[in-house]
Amino acid sequence: MTKTSVAVLGATGMVGQRFVQLLANHPYFEIEAFTASKQSVGKCYKEAAKWYLHPPMPEEVKDMEVQPTEEKAVEGAEIVFSALPSNVAKKVEPVMAKAGHLVASNASSYRMESDVPLLIPEVNPEHLALLYEQHDRRGWEGSIVTNPNCTTIILVLALKPLFDDFGIERLFVSTMQALSGAGYGGVKSMEIQDNLIPYIGKEEWKTENETLKILGEFKNGEILPAKIEISSSCHRVPVLDGHTEAVFLELGKETSLEEVSESLAKFKAKPQELKLPTAPEQPIIVETDANKPQPRSARFAGSVEGMAVAVGRIRKDPILKNGIRFVVSGNNAIRGAAGASVLNAELMKSEGLLK
Amino acid sequence: MTKTSVAVLGATGMVGQRFVQLLANHPYFEIEAFTASKQSVGKCYKEAAKWYLHPPMPEEVKDMEVQPTEEKAVEGAEIVFSALPSNVAKKVEPVMAKAGHLVASNASSYRMESDVPLLIPEVNPEHLALLYEQHDRRGWEGSIVTNPNCTTIILVLALKPLFDDFGIERLFVSTMQALSGAGYGGVKSMEIQDNLIPYIGKEEWKTENETLKILGEFKNGEILPAKIEISSSCHRVPVLDGHTEAVFLELGKETSLEEVSESLAKFKAKPQELKLPTAPEQPIIVETDANKPQPRSARFAGSVEGMAVAVGRIRKDPILKNGIRFVVSGNNAIRGAAGASVLNAELMKSEGLLK
Amino acid sequence: MTKTSVAVLGATGMVGQRFVQLLANHPYFEIEAFTASKQSVGKCYKEAAKWYLHPPMPEEVKDMEVQPTEEKAVEGAEIVFSALPSNVAKKVEPVMAKAGHLVASNASSYRMESDVPLLIPEVNPEHLALLYEQHDRRGWEGSIVTNPNCTTIILVLALKPLFDDFGIERLFVSTMQALSGAGYGGVKSMEIQDNLIPYIGKEEWKTENETLKILGEFKNGEILPAKIEISSSCHRVPVLDGHTEAVFLELGKETSLEEVSESLAKFKAKPQELKLPTAPEQPIIVETDANKPQPRSARFAGSVEGMAVAVGRIRKDPILKNGIRFVVSGNNAIRGAAGASVLNAELMKSEGLLK
Amino acid sequence: MTKTSVAVLGATGMVGQRFVQLLANHPYFEIEAFTASKQSVGKCYKEAAKWYLHPPMPEEVKDMEVQPTEEKAVEGAEIVFSALPSNVAKKVEPVMAKAGHLVASNASSYRMESDVPLLIPEVNPEHLALLYEQHDRRGWEGSIVTNPNCTTIILVLALKPLFDDFGIERLFVSTMQALSGAGYGGVKSMEIQDNLIPYIGKEEWKTENETLKILGEFKNGEILPAKIEISSSCHRVPVLDGHTEAVFLELGKETSLEEVSESLAKFKAKPQELKLPTAPEQPIIVETDANKPQPRSARFAGSVEGMAVAVGRIRKDPILKNGIRFVVSGNNAIRGAAGASVLNAELMKSEGLLK
Repeated sequence: MTKTSVAVLGATGMVGQRFVQLLANHPYFEIEAFTASKQSVGKCYKEAAKWYLHPPMPEEVKDMEVQPTEEKAVEGAEIVFSALPSNVAKKVEPVMAKAGHLVASNASSYRMESDVPLLIPEVNPEHLALLYEQHDRRGWEGSIVTNPNCTTIILVLALKPLFDDFGIERLFVSTMQALSGAGYGGVKSMEIQDNLIPYIGKEEWKTENETLKILGEFKNGEILPAKIEISSSCHRVPVLDGHTEAVFLELGKETSLEEVSESLAKFKAKPQELKLPTAPEQPIIVETDANKPQPRSARFAGSVEGMAVAVGRIRKDPILKNGIRFVVSGNNAIRGAAGASVLNAELMKSEGLLK
Repeated sequence: MTKTSVAVLGATGMVGQRFVQLLANHPYFEIEAFTASKQSVGKCYKEAAKWYLHPPMPEEVKDMEVQPTEEKAVEGAEIVFSALPSNVAKKVEPVMAKAGHLVASNASSYRMESDVPLLIPEVNPEHLALLYEQHDRRGWEGSIVTNPNCTTIILVLALKPLFDDFGIERLFVSTMQALSGAGYGGVKSMEIQDNLIPYIGKEEWKTENETLKILGEFKNGEILPAKIEISSSCHRVPVLDGHTEAVFLELGKETSLEEVSESLAKFKAKPQELKLPTAPEQPIIVETDANKPQPRSARFAGSVEGMAVAVGRIRKDPILKNGIRFVVSGNNAIRGAAGASVLNAELMKSEGLLK
Repeated sequence: MTKTSVAVLGATGMVGQRFVQLLANHPYFEIEAFTASKQSVGKCYKEAAKWYLHPPMPEEVKDMEVQPTEEKAVEGAEIVFSALPSNVAKKVEPVMAKAGHLVASNASSYRMESDVPLLIPEVNPEHLALLYEQHDRRGWEGSIVTNPNCTTIILVLALKPLFDDFGIERLFVSTMQALSGAGYGGVKSMEIQDNLIPYIGKEEWKTENETLKILGEFKNGEILPAKIEISSSCHRVPVLDGHTEAVFLELGKETSLEEVSESLAKFKAKPQELKLPTAPEQPIIVETDANKPQPRSARFAGSVEGMAVAVGRIRKDPILKNGIRFVVSGNNAIRGAAGASVLNAELMKSEGLLK
Repeated sequence: MTKTSVAVLGATGMVGQRFVQLLANHPYFEIEAFTASKQSVGKCYKEAAKWYLHPPMPEEVKDMEVQPTEEKAVEGAEIVFSALPSNVAKKVEPVMAKAGHLVASNASSYRMESDVPLLIPEVNPEHLALLYEQHDRRGWEGSIVTNPNCTTIILVLALKPLFDDFGIERLFVSTMQALSGAGYGGVKSMEIQDNLIPYIGKEEWKTENETLKILGEFKNGEILPAKIEISSSCHRVPVLDGHTEAVFLELGKETSLEEVSESLAKFKAKPQELKLPTAPEQPIIVETDANKPQPRSARFAGSVEGMAVAVGRIRKDPILKNGIRFVVSGNNAIRGAAGASVLNAELMKSEGLLK
């Protein structure tokens, strides 16, 4: 397979670094360019990026020069992975798409546009058909494909098999989210040390609305949102990586906890069939230890580290009809961000949707 | 007012220390004796107790000798405050009650007994009438009065005005609980550093069941549990003091967020009327900053430090009928434990229920 | 005593808030004005300052309007307390001094000027005589008096009685400094969570050089630096408040650990004699528990909370001649910053050095 | 090469788990048996060990049955790796050695015995000659070889090239040690959250004394301790893994910082020559970023993760003759414990010292 050349927009931030980590030595992709904001342009990557991750920065990217976030800088790249802040993404991504690039974006700017796929390859690969609408309507040479917000991905991945097997009527979700979800400088140590913050801007709106689109049905060129009721409450806790979510869920029909557990554990989907490089063998790990899932271990869940989510504490809910409760935890920066975009691109490559 | 002499059972642990802190220089009470487990007996308090609190150990208790947890050791005390572990409390508390002491207990052992008041003075002072039943049935000279579990108290205090003003049909609560709730040695640093634990033994059962008793109606010598549906999910986070709870609540009738907020903010009850020494002027502080309540500040809430709870993020719930969501945070060790027992005893003293 | 009217420059930051906390209801001083940077000007204090401290913001300052950091804004204030960043202080403080104000500054800009007192009232009150030099040389109506860097103050306070009683030849100090020392936004949570940072810009230079000036002798209008050799290594750890320092110290003559301990414990100086309001009864608390001092309790040390330092682990050093080792911990934001400046001003008021 | 069969004593604790992690799939060794304390005996390893590490427990050990810590249980093992507490090790290890096993011990019990090698393969491989003395004196079939305390290993590894190239006269070291150094349950979360503890029992004695033995000269059947003066101060900080140490060092001759840095960076020794499986390519990583080394990254240092130490902030010391200062950080549980013992055994196997 010839490698597809790719670029990373916003490559020095935390999601950008995760992109670099996942794309270095990728079997399908070859990094051709990095872009970042003005103060980094012209520097080599090892000087521009304060590397936060383990393992250390891949050798082969250290001396690549950081480019300005402009189309000219990435013109040789078929795919541009976008880790841009949403206000920048809003302007830059359409320019890139118009110029013929596939924009695989982690930004929120275009997620809810009716002709933009909001994709989780295990959940709604058929939504890629929206690209025909996008092409017709926008007239772009390229296109934009987005992945959901980190909290949403981790939630929806755990919901999908239950949605398919039993139906979902409504759910309440209360989150305990990691620091890295706010970006490297997002949460000050003085704010969160020995503390928690019970608010994350726009997060509740995103989880409630993105979920309906992802689980929606593609029909006649559009997505009909899923008929599920969702209420969420989002909170930041002093944990480096790994969002944890407590879910109260009303299923569409009666079932046992064993069936729920089995539905989650046996779940596999297109990325697993296609053996996509970033797809974990099992997207959902079911924990039986009552103290699990915990973010310090769940952040590594999966045969591809951080690409699976861990679900535990599956139990009956005493209020909801056919109700269950569980806790899910997953790596917000990998499965919830960069890994999600990379998997989207792998699916498209594998399906022949790249040039 | 003559001071009532009191003793503290289990005085060296964390809740025991909070008792000592609140009872030293108390206008109603005078500490006469401390008890603790075998390895502390015979030592003076300053040697036996590894003082965890700020401010430092009160001077007047430093040289008091720690006694064994036996009736003889506390025979001069009219009230014995119990910070005993529940398995010890189960055996010791009835002995104390039989011998004529009022046992003001923070232990869970007798909370759900049908003739034992599970008391929050602002919420159900009329439940003290159960003591007549207790006396009749048990034939004890003294009696046992309990306070609820820490998580329950913080929750129910926030529920009470809404229950009175609008009715409550059902609620989901997801907690983020402090380390001190597990006792000084309860959570190892290796377990919780950069992590959270999504399980606390028996906590969900307690919050779901104690709440119904507390909000229940006293009628014909018994408590009819409140007709509310509750589902809870309890989690430990790396915070020293202060339990935080995200609540999804269905009210009994339609109302506005302003009315909810006002109901909470204006709430005062018997302890405030009676100006009990440990009663905060306002039991509920309503926060308007979107980032609040946070446990690092909420742990000090109230004109009596740590005796009020802080409520914030009051917003509509998109699913529940007449639904609202909010977050409440309060000091689990003061309002949720020792302060709760002390306030119970103050109420009884003020109501003339002590000898 | 008539209250002296004062202003706080840079009142919204963390040291600024500590000034406000210490000056509200102060027996000598009355806050007349606050200044802050452009984005806060015109707002009332409760809107401009994100209050980080416990107890909550004093009622009387909530509605005071924040002024620009200009002389005109503080013209009615005899003393201006400066919590300005050093680059701003460098320009603003001389303007204020020239216009007749006493500038009691926590900034580093003028600390090492030969005619500016670098003052710790318990250590070198006689250095105030430098003000005559300052007046002669600069021709200002007012003057600048500074307090040392937080790490230096905590160190030198512990050194002073040993310096007087035994002499000090040389010392090595290795610090573990709190987050608040870097200001509210100074350390990102992603940097320090489950980590430490072994570098603090300019801190080693400050501790090594300020110490010599403070312990120096005032003679013929100048300070002759103390003849002590100092080497320091400074590190940031995940602790909210309280700098802790491990000291290896060569004394000028042989002594016993008991004498060292007694020298520290009995130390009292001018602020204690004068009973200055912010002076702790004992500036140094000697800990006998092998596990102490710890910053979580040492941050409250002293009869005036946070104004004493705690010293423990006093033991022989196996290398140094007449060598001892100890650990000292104190509140960097109170004794190490705002409280230091306030105590300086109290001393000057008490000594009749204010107009 | 035939694999040598080995056993792990104390296999369920934290160091024990590190042994299991390093020995599963080891090219030289094959795990034949685990032992642990009474409550684990008879359980399979996956039930007995609360696995703390990442990656997850190796598949091949999950179902192995935990044995009692007795010679009979390990009789087929040529090497027994000991992660026993020192009081247990004191009794058990000689029994094992007498019965013919090579005991590769992380326990402190026999480290300072005159005929027991205290080994760091990069530093003093020639000390293995002590085994002849041990054999002669004790008459054991087998033998005991120990590795130093975690803090000592990390320190001495950084000292070794400087000792060889320039000589070392004296040093002061102040440590900031990780939680895992105290064992899984060693430090309570209530003790260390938002805090540090300035004392670790016996640690200062160990660092001061073990260092002299390790750097000592083997001559005429005994070790002549190195003539170095050492003073240490040891402190616990809230970091999971990775001890960090600030060192003030007097070298034997004048040198430049560049030479020091080069001496450290180019250091290689016998394990590197022999390409031992657990030997990192470079034992010392020199950091040039002023903010490094930090334990969150240094815990992974080395081509074999956690087996190198990271040194940074190399600068002149203003007091000491030919003085330098630096900070070193390394993984206390790998390089400082289990990895150290495994490397010792690899050296002995490679040198033909096993049967």
